[in-house]
Amino acid sequence: MDNLIALAQLNPISGDVEYNKNKACNYIKQAVEKNAALIVFPELFLVGYPLGDILTRYPIIAKQAKEALDEIKQYSDKIDILIGYPEINPNNYQKPYYNSIAYIKQGRIEKIIRKTLLANYQEHNDYRYFESYIEHQDRIIEVMGKKFGVVVCEDSWNDNEFFEKNLYAIDPVEKLKGRIDALICPSSSCSRVKKEQLKNNLAKFIAKKYNIKYIYINQTGANDELVYEGLSRVYNEKGEVIACAQAFSEELLVFDYEKGGNIAPYYRRIEKEEKPIKKFTLDYSSDLERTYLALVTSIKDYFSKTGFKKAVLGLSGGLDSTICACLLADALKKENVLGVSMPACITSKESKDDAKVLACNLGINFIEVPIVDMQMAQTQKFSDIFSTIPKGFIENKGSYVQDNIQARLRAMVLWGIANKYEKTLTIATSDKSELYMGYATINGDMSGGFAPICDVVKTKLFALANWMNENRAQKNAIPRSIIEKPPGAELAINPKTKKPLIAADALMPYEFLDEVIWRIENLNQSIDDMEKEEFLYEKKENITKTQKTLWLQKFFKRLKGALYKWYIVPVGPLIDSKSINKIEYKQPIVSNIDY
Amino acid sequence: MDNLIALAQLNPISGDVEYNKNKACNYIKQAVEKNAALIVFPELFLVGYPLGDILTRYPIIAKQAKEALDEIKQYSDKIDILIGYPEINPNNYQKPYYNSIAYIKQGRIEKIIRKTLLANYQEHNDYRYFESYIEHQDRIIEVMGKKFGVVVCEDSWNDNEFFEKNLYAIDPVEKLKGRIDALICPSSSCSRVKKEQLKNNLAKFIAKKYNIKYIYINQTGANDELVYEGLSRVYNEKGEVIACAQAFSEELLVFDYEKGGNIAPYYRRIEKEEKPIKKFTLDYSSDLERTYLALVTSIKDYFSKTGFKKAVLGLSGGLDSTICACLLADALKKENVLGVSMPACITSKESKDDAKVLACNLGINFIEVPIVDMQMAQTQKFSDIFSTIPKGFIENKGSYVQDNIQARLRAMVLWGIANKYEKTLTIATSDKSELYMGYATINGDMSGGFAPICDVVKTKLFALANWMNENRAQKNAIPRSIIEKPPGAELAINPKTKKPLIAADALMPYEFLDEVIWRIENLNQSIDDMEKEEFLYEKKENITKTQKTLWLQKFFKRLKGALYKWYIVPVGPLIDSKSINKIEYKQPIVSNIDY
Repeated sequence: MDNLIALAQLNPISGDVEYNKNKACNYIKQAVEKNAALIVFPELFLVGYPLGDILTRYPIIAKQAKEALDEIKQYSDKIDILIGYPEINPNNYQKPYYNSIAYIKQGRIEKIIRKTLLANYQEHNDYRYFESYIEHQDRIIEVMGKKFGVVVCEDSWNDNEFFEKNLYAIDPVEKLKGRIDALICPSSSCSRVKKEQLKNNLAKFIAKKYNIKYIYINQTGANDELVYEGLSRVYNEKGEVIACAQAFSEELLVFDYEKGGNIAPYYRRIEKEEKPIKKFTLDYSSDLERTYLALVTSIKDYFSKTGFKKAVLGLSGGLDSTICACLLADALKKENVLGVSMPACITSKESKDDAKVLACNLGINFIEVPIVDMQMAQTQKFSDIFSTIPKGFIENKGSYVQDNIQARLRAMVLWGIANKYEKTLTIATSDKSELYMGYATINGDMSGGFAPICDVVKTKLFALANWMNENRAQKNAIPRSIIEKPPGAELAINPKTKKPLIAADALMPYEFLDEVIWRIENLNQSIDDMEKEEFLYEKKENITKTQKTLWLQKFFKRLKGALYKWYIVPVGPLIDSKSINKIEYKQPIVSNIDY
Repeated sequence: MDNLIALAQLNPISGDVEYNKNKACNYIKQAVEKNAALIVFPELFLVGYPLGDILTRYPIIAKQAKEALDEIKQYSDKIDILIGYPEINPNNYQKPYYNSIAYIKQGRIEKIIRKTLLANYQEHNDYRYFESYIEHQDRIIEVMGKKFGVVVCEDSWNDNEFFEKNLYAIDPVEKLKGRIDALICPSSSCSRVKKEQLKNNLAKFIAKKYNIKYIYINQTGANDELVYEGLSRVYNEKGEVIACAQAFSEELLVFDYEKGGNIAPYYRRIEKEEKPIKKFTLDYSSDLERTYLALVTSIKDYFSKTGFKKAVLGLSGGLDSTICACLLADALKKENVLGVSMPACITSKESKDDAKVLACNLGINFIEVPIVDMQMAQTQKFSDIFSTIPKGFIENKGSYVQDNIQARLRAMVLWGIANKYEKTLTIATSDKSELYMGYATINGDMSGGFAPICDVVKTKLFALANWMNENRAQKNAIPRSIIEKPPGAELAINPKTKKPLIAADALMPYEFLDEVIWRIENLNQSIDDMEKEEFLYEKKENITKTQKTLWLQKFFKRLKGALYKWYIVPVGPLIDSKSINKIEYKQPIVSNIDY
C-alpha cells in the first residue's frame, strides 16, 4: 500500500461550525476511500478564518467546535486526522482560547498542538483572540512510520536566516531540528501581491535547511476582505515542489509521501516570474492572473456566503465600472448582472456608447436611465435651498455640489433597484488610487454593498483591462476606447479645456500618484524621503522639483481629508501588499501627521 | 517648600508631535512656576493615543518624538518629568517600538520605563504596535526623597486578588511590593459605562493592599471613537481620594504629596452611585451625566481636530435627531448648527411642529425643505425604471423603496448643504438599537460625517432626553411630545393602524431589544441562554414563550443582515461597555453563526 496523505484545501464559512464540520466529514470519507493514512485541514478549519471578534462575543462557537470534534472522532478508525479549532484555555488567566490542531487517531484525540506565534499585524489580529502557547510541547506525530512535526501557520514564519528581521524570540521549527522527517503546516494564509512567492521561498528554504519535507495546507475562498489562494503544496528535502493543489478552488489533494502527486499548472507558472524586488514598476504582468482570480473569488464568495445573487452597478463607460462589470459577469454569471448607464447633462455620446458596447460584449443585462431630469430638478431644488441658508454659513469657493448631485442620484437609482428586487446588491466602483485621494463621492460611487476594486490602483486597472481582453474566455470584451481615454469622473467641465475634467488634472498623473501610494505601503517613506528619490514618472517626463513637491503636498493634504471617507468604504478584497481596508489599516481621522 | 507634584491631564492630537510637544513644554513651565518637583504626562503623550497603525506606516513619527524629547530635556533643570512616547526597540527582532515613559531629570533622560502588559482587546490594539517588555526593569524613581514605582496603564490592571480572571501571567505592581512609597500610573484610559467605577475600585484596592499612594494620570478629550474622561487622581494609603482633576477637560492638577489637592465635584458624585452589578436595568440615571459629557466632548473634539466648524442635520421631530441637535448645540454653539426639517408626503403636522419648536428652543438655525416634490418625481422615476428591469430580477414581496427614497433624498439635501458651505459636516442620527437591527437607511439616516449616538441604545436615549431637560442650562428644550410619542421612522404607513408605522411594530419593543443587546455585550449569551432567563420586559408585560422566541430569532436574523451596514457606519463615540463600532468589534459579514 502506498503512503498517501490527503490535504483538504477547503473554503470554510466563518462561525458556521455545522457547515464546516459537515464539509470536514465529507472530505474525510473521500480521503478514506482513496486510502489516505492522514488527512490535514487548514488552520482553525472548524470555525473558519478570519473570525473577527465572534469567538469573544459568542463563546458558544467554541462549544460547538468541541462537539464537532466529538463527531469527527467517529470517522478516524481508518484514517488519522489533523484539524484546527479554537481550544478552550483551561487556565483562569490569559486569553480564553488556544489556536489548536487536534490530532485524532482511532476514535480519540491523541494529541493537541497549540500555536505559539500569533500574527498580529496587517490583516491578522490573532492575539486579540488567542493565547500564545510558549511552554514546551510535543509537536510530533507518527504516521506511516514517519515523524511529522506540526506547526500552525505563523509558527513556521520566524526563521532567523530567512528573514532580515524577526518578530518573535522563539522559532518552533528550529526546536524540531533533527527530530522529524517532515513538517506539516496547517495555515490560513491569504493572497497578497508577491506573497505567494514569499511563501514558496520560505517553504523551500526550510525544507532544504532541515532536510525535511514541507507540507503546507492552506484554505481557499474568500471571507469579506480576505481571499485565500489555496495552492496547498508539498516540498521534498531538496525544496522541490512534488505536489500542489489548484489556486482559488476547493480540492482534496492526495499525494504519495515519497513520489508526490499532482502539481497544478497555475503554481508552476507564477513560480518562475515572481521575485521579491522592492521597486515600483508599472509592469504588473506577473500579478494580473492572481489579481483577476482573487477579485472574482472575492465577489463570488461574498455573494454566495451572504445569500445575494444579483448585482447592479452603474456603467459610466469609464475604466472602474468597466472592470467591475467584467469581474461580476465572471463571478456571478452574466444574467445576474445589471449594468445601468445613467447619462447626465454633460455625459458624452462616447461614454454612453462605450457603456452600451461593453454590456453587449459581456452579455449582461443593460438599461439606460438618463438622470438629466432629476439632475435639473435637484439643481433647482438646491438653488432654492441655498437661498434660505442662514448667513453664518459661508459658501465654499469651489464646491462639488453639482458633481455630487450626479453621483448621488446614480447611487439612488442603483440602491432603489437593489431594494426592489430579491437578493440584489449594488456595487461600489471606487478604485484604490482615488480612495487615497478622497476622489469619490459619499453616497455616490463610493456607495455599495461591495467594493471589488477598492485595493487596486488605477495603473494596475489599465493593465488588468488589457489582460482581461487577452485572457478572458471572451476576448476583447472591453472596447479599446475605454482603455485609451484618460480617466475622469465626467462630473464637471474643465473651464480651461471646456471638456469634461480629467482626473489627472484634478489630482496628478496616475503613474506618479500610484508610486506615492506604493512608497508609503512598501517603503514607509515620508515626504522628505520621496523628494530625495527619483520616481519612475520623473525618468519619463521632465518635471521640476517644485512640481514634484506640489504633487506630494497635494497628495498628503488630500489623504488627510480622505480619512473619514476611508472609514465608510464598503467591504472589498485585499489585493496589494498593504491597503487602506479597515481590517488591516487604522488611522485616526483626527490624526494630524507631519509626513 | 511643599512637596508638590503636577499631573498634566491633557488632550493630545494623534500623530501631531509638534502640537503635543508644544503643549507639554507649556505645561512644564506652568508646573515650574507652581514649584512642582515632578510633572507627569499621560501614556504616549508625545504622539497621542490612540495611534491606529500610523506608527507602523509612518515611522517618521517615532523619530519626531525622539527629537521632541531632546527639546523637552531643556526644561528639566527645575523639575523632573515623566512623559510617554514610542521608544524605538533596538532589537532586530520583535515589534519595532516599546510603549515607554522617559524619566527626565536635570537635562537628561535618567531612566526609561517600558510597558509590559499590552492591552489587546476591545478598543485596544497595543500589541499590533508595541513589543511587551518582559525582562526585569528598574521602575523606581526617587523624587523629594520618596520612592515612586512607575507602571504604564494596563501594567496596573492585573492584580490577581482584584480580578476574577487575569489576562497576563506577570503583575508588574506586585514586583514593586515593599519597595515603593507610591505608584505612578500614566494612562490613556477611555470612558465607558461603569469603567470609572472599576478604575476607582482598582486604584483603591491597590493603594490599600500595598499601603502606598496611587497616582493616576489620564488623558482627556476625544479621538474619533474614544473619549477620555481625565479624572486624574491621587489616593492615599487608605485608598481615599486626596486629589482629583476635572472630568472631560484639560487641567494641570498640582497636589501636595502628603496633603493632596483639589477634588473635582464630578468625581465625588459618580463615586457614590456606581456599582459593578451585571444586571440589565432601564434605570440609567447613574450614567447620564457621563454619557452627556462624553457625547458632547466627542463632537467638540472631532470637529475641532478635523477642522470642521458647522453641523447640518435633519430634524424629524423624532428622538434621535432631537438628541443629536441638543448635543451639537452644546458642543459647537447653537449658531453653528443647522437643523433641516424635510417633511415628505406622510409626515405629520405634529412631527413638523416638534422639529420647529425644538430648533426654536435650542436657538439653532432652522430651515424647512419639503421633499414632497422630489419624492413624487423620484417615485415616478422608479416606476419608469422598474418597468424596464429584465425579467430575471424578481420583485421583493415587501420592499423599502418608498421608505428609502425619503431617507436618501433627505441625506442628499444635507450633503448638498455640507458640500456647498465651508467646514460643514452632516450628522448621522442612527442609534445603537436600530443599527443592531439594520433599521437604518444606507445613504439615508445612516449617512453622515459623524454619528454621535451610534453607541447609545434607544431606552437610554429616552432617559437622556429627560436628563437634558432637567440638567441643561436651558431647561425643557425638548418638547414633551417628542419624548412621549412611540419612536418610528415615519417612512411608511402601517396597513393595520393606517398611521405611520412605529419601530416597535417593525422590530420589537425597545425595552426587550435593548436587553438582548445588553445580554450579548455584557454576558455573551446565546439564544438558548436568553430563552432560559427572564427579561425585565417579561416581568412587566405578559408575553408568551413563543413571542419571546420569535423576537429573539428576529433579532439575530436581522443582526446578520445588518452586518454589512455596520461596516459603513460613520465614526462615532464609544459609550457602552461594548459596542459594534469598528474600532473595537469585528464580525465577518459573511459569518454565519448559530447563536
